[in-house]
Amino acid sequence: MSTTSTETQATGPGTDPGAARPFGDLPIRPELAGEHPYGAPQLDVPVLLNVNENPYAPSAEVIATIAAEVSRAAATLNRYPDREFTALRDDLRAYLALESGACLDELAVWAANGSNEVMLHLLQAFGGPGRTALSFAPTYSMYPEYARDTHTRWVTARRETDFTVDPARAAAGIAEHRPSVILLASPNNPTGTALPLSTVEAVLAAASQADPDTPAVVVVDEAYAEFRRAGTPSAVGLLAGHPNLAVTRTMSKAFAAAGARVGYLAAGPQLVDALRVVRLPYHLSAITQAVARAALRHRETLLAQVDTLRAERDALVAWLREQRAPDGRALDVPDSDANFVLFGTFADRHAVWQGLLDRGVLIRETGPDGWLRVSVGTPEENAAFRDALTHVIEETKTA
Amino acid sequence: MSTTSTETQATGPGTDPGAARPFGDLPIRPELAGEHPYGAPQLDVPVLLNVNENPYAPSAEVIATIAAEVSRAAATLNRYPDREFTALRDDLRAYLALESGACLDELAVWAANGSNEVMLHLLQAFGGPGRTALSFAPTYSMYPEYARDTHTRWVTARRETDFTVDPARAAAGIAEHRPSVILLASPNNPTGTALPLSTVEAVLAAASQADPDTPAVVVVDEAYAEFRRAGTPSAVGLLAGHPNLAVTRTMSKAFAAAGARVGYLAAGPQLVDALRVVRLPYHLSAITQAVARAALRHRETLLAQVDTLRAERDALVAWLREQRAPDGRALDVPDSDANFVLFGTFADRHAVWQGLLDRGVLIRETGPDGWLRVSVGTPEENAAFRDALTHVIEETKTA
Repeated sequence: MSTTSTETQATGPGTDPGAARPFGDLPIRPELAGEHPYGAPQLDVPVLLNVNENPYAPSAEVIATIAAEVSRAAATLNRYPDREFTALRDDLRAYLALESGACLDELAVWAANGSNEVMLHLLQAFGGPGRTALSFAPTYSMYPEYARDTHTRWVTARRETDFTVDPARAAAGIAEHRPSVILLASPNNPTGTALPLSTVEAVLAAASQADPDTPAVVVVDEAYAEFRRAGTPSAVGLLAGHPNLAVTRTMSKAFAAAGARVGYLAAGPQLVDALRVVRLPYHLSAITQAVARAALRHRETLLAQVDTLRAERDALVAWLREQRAPDGRALDVPDSDANFVLFGTFADRHAVWQGLLDRGVLIRETGPDGWLRVSVGTPEENAAFRDALTHVIEETKTA
Repeated sequence: MSTTSTETQATGPGTDPGAARPFGDLPIRPELAGEHPYGAPQLDVPVLLNVNENPYAPSAEVIATIAAEVSRAAATLNRYPDREFTALRDDLRAYLALESGACLDELAVWAANGSNEVMLHLLQAFGGPGRTALSFAPTYSMYPEYARDTHTRWVTARRETDFTVDPARAAAGIAEHRPSVILLASPNNPTGTALPLSTVEAVLAAASQADPDTPAVVVVDEAYAEFRRAGTPSAVGLLAGHPNLAVTRTMSKAFAAAGARVGYLAAGPQLVDALRVVRLPYHLSAITQAVARAALRHRETLLAQVDTLRAERDALVAWLREQRAPDGRALDVPDSDANFVLFGTFADRHAVWQGLLDRGVLIRETGPDGWLRVSVGTPEENAAFRDALTHVIEETKTA
């Protein structure tokens, strides 16, 4: 079985390739000399459905709790923060127990400034020069950046045409590339695809078979886990008995706190101890710890909004499946367990993206050729998107 | 001229070598397998003079401004923060112009979660595998950790016996090791020694001579710059005409905001653009940006406290120079331009450190053998330190 792998250090969509980058005589690393800062275009548009943000701003009550907790933390701001952020770790552990039924005793928790810093810590500890990170494309476009930043070789095997991961093909890719880190996004960005636990278990088994002495660290990236459909399990339930498994989460999405930059993971205590070695001391400010704890106290309200977004997502998927591309083909829309929907394919996706932007709706031109990704917004924002897309398709009909 | 260099990946003082670190079968990088998380012991002691914190907690007014700014930022916390933190950069630029008379037009500014993340970005962009970072020992014990985290070879040349840097010896070290990054702490930690601008200029000239095409990036670490004595200049004044110079600062010390984790640097725009390539997107939270801007608005009040600390520091240096070690030798106390004082030497420095701790005063056992470092606290804390040291020396007299 061929794994049809690709090896690349390319940056994902969202870079700004037009900008000139004259580094003059500075000794910048050669592999960075042609690179551009990662990030989606930040445009001033009425309907922002491009970076999978939660559309619901914090309520006055949440803001008040945040202000109160920050005031408390600021009273000793002259002191360094708790390096081990013990109280926040306890709160996160309790939350995961509630949300995923995880057993507290078997969980260790880690947190950092966004799940991208969590990923950096993972690759610093377990990747690096001479080592390989493997994932399954199409997947999150930041992963190769993390690999580049840590000098980790970046390899992808491919997902199936429906964006699922075939366990046998995954095992073959692991045997071929012998990665020390395997990244499994579930739900996957940009496709929305969640993996069944049997696939995660197959990957864990393949990692053990490929290297029985030091099996690869398997990272299940559950940034969007709270948006999963009923019946879709979390990999948190697999942590017991798998010391090389890590499940990453974020407060950016379900907790509507992208601006606070709090990512975290659950894993066994040995794995978390390894991350403590590579973290910069005091990496999590006293203020960040306070804000995260404040948001966690409002989890019931915030998760109720997640339920609204899930229903909106399902309605959006159903509606998109009834639409046709300008050339008359029915749209393809994979199941989504996230707060965004991939849809396509379009002969000229850029024209569709631009047409939506011209009508005040910013979505993301990402994923495989021909596909577009839209974040789930408020009911009003989703209606605006549907209306704009209907008009754009109508105006550009070719069949 | 020999540079008597040492090459090491060793962690500095403050690790906890007693802790067992069983990483099990995890594929941790071999160079990390015996390492421990960096950090000074966090003990519950009445007088904390061990990690160079500012002893003055934020005033009620500062806390109120922070809470107000955080509330404003929290209103859109569901959105990602400004990736370029433009408003904060403008505020920092204005502050540096005020504090160091720097010309705004020639300054670009960068910020991150603590100056340690700023250093990480510098070494990611300009250090890395196959490259060398050079500093002058004794110096800040975190530098080799940053080098290790970025796979940069770490080399030190030595400071003189009075902890100054000899320009000719520095040039010889640069010619010998051909570093791509040179780290100059000024005021230096743990010795308190500030470098004259002529030394920084000599290092810049040596870097250009060693590699005329791509001279090394010279980083002057001015974490403690606001505490410098009258007449000691900042290297910010050298930025014009030196695109390979970066001057790092922090809000942890002078701004009494160690808990907020805000470090920054000033440099030319090309250098800052290189850091934008390696930073994780959205590395600085909306909350951190708000807290930093709130503290900067109170700069006059906060810098008035710095004046108090400078006077206390000078008095502490003078007092220590009148003391004698238990064996009767006069204490040696280098000039300090920082908010801490190195003093020694002691035949058994650990006994002195422990004696002080037994009396409720925690200082730091760091620096070359025989030396101890004490942070400058409030007048009451400094009096407690003097009293405790007098007793400890008296009780352990050997001559």
